[in-house]
Amino acid sequence: MPEPKREILDRQDEIVARLREIVPGEGVIVHAAEKRAYESDGLTAYRTSPMVVVLPSTVDQISQIMAYCNDLGIRVVPRGAGTSLSGGALPLEDGILLGLGKFNQILEVDYDNRCVVAQPGVTNLGITKAVEHEGFYYAPDPSSQIACSIGGNIAENSGGVHCLKYGLTTNNVLGVQMVLIDGTVVRLGGKHLDSEGYDLLGLITGSEGLLGVVTEVTVRILKAPESARAVLLGFPSNEQAGDTVAGIIASGIVPAGVEMMDKVAIQAAEDFVRAGYPLDVEALLICELDGPESEVDELLARVSRIAQDNGASYERVSQDDEERAKFWAGRKAAFPAVGRVTPDYYCMDGTIPRHQLAHVLARMREMSEHYQLGVANVFHAGDGNLHPLIMYDANEGNQLERAEEFGADILKLCVQVGGVLTGEHGVGVEKRDLMGEMFTQIDLDMQQRVKCAFDRDGLLNPGKMFPTLSNCAEMGKMHIHRGKLPFPDIPRF
Amino acid sequence: MPEPKREILDRQDEIVARLREIVPGEGVIVHAAEKRAYESDGLTAYRTSPMVVVLPSTVDQISQIMAYCNDLGIRVVPRGAGTSLSGGALPLEDGILLGLGKFNQILEVDYDNRCVVAQPGVTNLGITKAVEHEGFYYAPDPSSQIACSIGGNIAENSGGVHCLKYGLTTNNVLGVQMVLIDGTVVRLGGKHLDSEGYDLLGLITGSEGLLGVVTEVTVRILKAPESARAVLLGFPSNEQAGDTVAGIIASGIVPAGVEMMDKVAIQAAEDFVRAGYPLDVEALLICELDGPESEVDELLARVSRIAQDNGASYERVSQDDEERAKFWAGRKAAFPAVGRVTPDYYCMDGTIPRHQLAHVLARMREMSEHYQLGVANVFHAGDGNLHPLIMYDANEGNQLERAEEFGADILKLCVQVGGVLTGEHGVGVEKRDLMGEMFTQIDLDMQQRVKCAFDRDGLLNPGKMFPTLSNCAEMGKMHIHRGKLPFPDIPRF
Repeated sequence: MPEPKREILDRQDEIVARLREIVPGEGVIVHAAEKRAYESDGLTAYRTSPMVVVLPSTVDQISQIMAYCNDLGIRVVPRGAGTSLSGGALPLEDGILLGLGKFNQILEVDYDNRCVVAQPGVTNLGITKAVEHEGFYYAPDPSSQIACSIGGNIAENSGGVHCLKYGLTTNNVLGVQMVLIDGTVVRLGGKHLDSEGYDLLGLITGSEGLLGVVTEVTVRILKAPESARAVLLGFPSNEQAGDTVAGIIASGIVPAGVEMMDKVAIQAAEDFVRAGYPLDVEALLICELDGPESEVDELLARVSRIAQDNGASYERVSQDDEERAKFWAGRKAAFPAVGRVTPDYYCMDGTIPRHQLAHVLARMREMSEHYQLGVANVFHAGDGNLHPLIMYDANEGNQLERAEEFGADILKLCVQVGGVLTGEHGVGVEKRDLMGEMFTQIDLDMQQRVKCAFDRDGLLNPGKMFPTLSNCAEMGKMHIHRGKLPFPDIPRF
Repeated sequence: MPEPKREILDRQDEIVARLREIVPGEGVIVHAAEKRAYESDGLTAYRTSPMVVVLPSTVDQISQIMAYCNDLGIRVVPRGAGTSLSGGALPLEDGILLGLGKFNQILEVDYDNRCVVAQPGVTNLGITKAVEHEGFYYAPDPSSQIACSIGGNIAENSGGVHCLKYGLTTNNVLGVQMVLIDGTVVRLGGKHLDSEGYDLLGLITGSEGLLGVVTEVTVRILKAPESARAVLLGFPSNEQAGDTVAGIIASGIVPAGVEMMDKVAIQAAEDFVRAGYPLDVEALLICELDGPESEVDELLARVSRIAQDNGASYERVSQDDEERAKFWAGRKAAFPAVGRVTPDYYCMDGTIPRHQLAHVLARMREMSEHYQLGVANVFHAGDGNLHPLIMYDANEGNQLERAEEFGADILKLCVQVGGVLTGEHGVGVEKRDLMGEMFTQIDLDMQQRVKCAFDRDGLLNPGKMFPTLSNCAEMGKMHIHRGKLPFPDIPRF
């Protein structure tokens, strides 16, 4: 993380006093005990107590806070519900933690334009709750949807089981209001189609709080499908399951979700929640189809044929919504279930092109033997989004080191086959130092130039996503010195 | 347009010679007669002969050309098929016109990942042609799809009739390879889900050739729907038709397309192509539903009920694909059809929130009376994307001036009701000077800072999209001068 600024810490009292003027009442937290709740997010291995926590309740307050921080050079870490799995909301000891928890209102439901306008602290599920009585829902559904905020979803470009068919957050956001680091309030997008100019809305989505603070969102809502059914498909090998996923997609079918679990994960989940999974298979797919009933029936038949062609040894279609929920319960509990059978596990989040599934699974099994560590595979197979869980015991010899090497090998493999380091958990502090595996220095510089366009002094969430901090001022100095600065001369940050 | 650079024009011979070294053979065009084909794009009112036309055939050649232009400060205008309706590919007299016509190969068809990798000069329809024998297609379908290039589609974020259900270009592009102004070749996105870092792929899509030259694209392909049917719905008023569109969307139905025509357009189209349209209605909707047959049947019944509730006086469902094609033939020929009944027309391209359709149509009728000029309405009603055609005679009194005022009033109204200046034609030179109607100076500055991050010297397609050129160097100078540059102090470009 960036070196704390001594001159800011020395002025803490003055800063707190000014923040209390901007946010009167109980919105400014400085006592260590009260700050504890904000020390970490879902990646609890990292903890830092922020200099001060501010919980504004109006956009004007946020604008004033940002302008003040910009003037004094105070760093700002925005925080939604704090459910990030990559440390995206990890505080800085010399920084303000800007909590959006009080922005929890649905502002407008607009069925004619099929959208909802909400404050960023509304939970993901809260959007659906506001419209489900009319038969609508908000599609992206991260596992944390009961707790995670829609503002945080935008920061991380969150996914979920249904993103295969309905897209990630970026495909479902229509507009935002946001505050820039200088306090300026801007609107990007809206209820309309497309927009002239560069697509700044797309740029903001997934920018992990490094470009601005989102203070209002407009998201698309969808009509709930007429029917949905899930099928369990068991296979004698991971490769056959992987080929089946590729085969389903290649045939043109787009299931509402296709999840995959390997033998270790199946066993652990079944022991934990009794989902009714077969225990004599090496790999299990859960494939959900939705739409009109007659369409679902036909698609299920086609999925079944593809599975049979790939050697499926088990098949069971959910007979009602209760059974469908049971199928999913096992999948959703798979992480804690694996946690019950190993002292520690290391969860990866790589994404690969779908047709590489079988190859990557086979290679991962070889690595497992090489490192003498078990691995449980639970993942969004339809998206090619892997969540291998490397099982180890931190108290046993060099198992931790071996697990980390194993993890690095998996990520390198993902990149080698044309994939990426993360599918939905973001980079945050967790994968920051791995960005070089994926991007060249040219790529990283290109990203930093965009950062400089929004936040020249690097005050917004520094230390996240990128291995080094940008030095936008150096860029300017070089420019003046030489009169003209073609890109190759920009100093590497 | 930007002032031509005398020092570049003076070095024309030397520049041409260097370009001939980079692109041997017939790829460099300097003769006036041969350059004529490149003088304008689909917006033929604007014409400029470029200093030189270059038609490279490899990415390495493009990289060398860009690096050379960057070194010498030569402006570059990229061009796909030249079908832009907003002058996006209008040449500069001191600039290189970089034609991508030789990049016309499909590089890979990958059904497992449901995507096609193509060179940017492949036509939009060419993508579908490469996969239709397997039952797939590429969804965005601009009217010019037989001619327009996929690279141009990315530059303009092109739409089409089916974008209501299947999204604009930005929702169907998975990755690009592009060359930056300094010659650097980068890849953005790929065959995988999401990606870490800022979403530069989203930023590039719709950037009208101002950020880089796309040299390869990866696009999503979809399975063709099992069936598709269209229904003609006639109404005694535009308002009832507008309310029907809002009602269909509010009910949760997402048609494959919903197009609307008013009485003037209906009459003109029917006279021209005999599509079988009713002539005793004020407004006509063409609504297409696609999917499994049973779903289409049910949705057609629901659309019919909504139309009846809004007072529809005419309804006809296509009985076969031939009749469906006839319904569309009238719509697709509506522009030339209107051209047959008025000496001149001025085509607008605003977009509004759907529930404002009825209101905007009513206001437009009042304006038509005020200006004493007819207006024909032909548009993508489902998207809220209006294409009013203001009819006038340039040789009659002040009709041209009145038409322009009328047009400006329509665009202002679009912005007032929460819409934007363009839906799919782009800004280009056509709407450049109207950007101030939509954006504040703060918004425009934010966009310019992004431009500076990619192209500090403003060499890529200057004069398009933005009313003034950015002065990135000034930004740097200010920064040094004051030691610290908060955003409000950045000089207005």
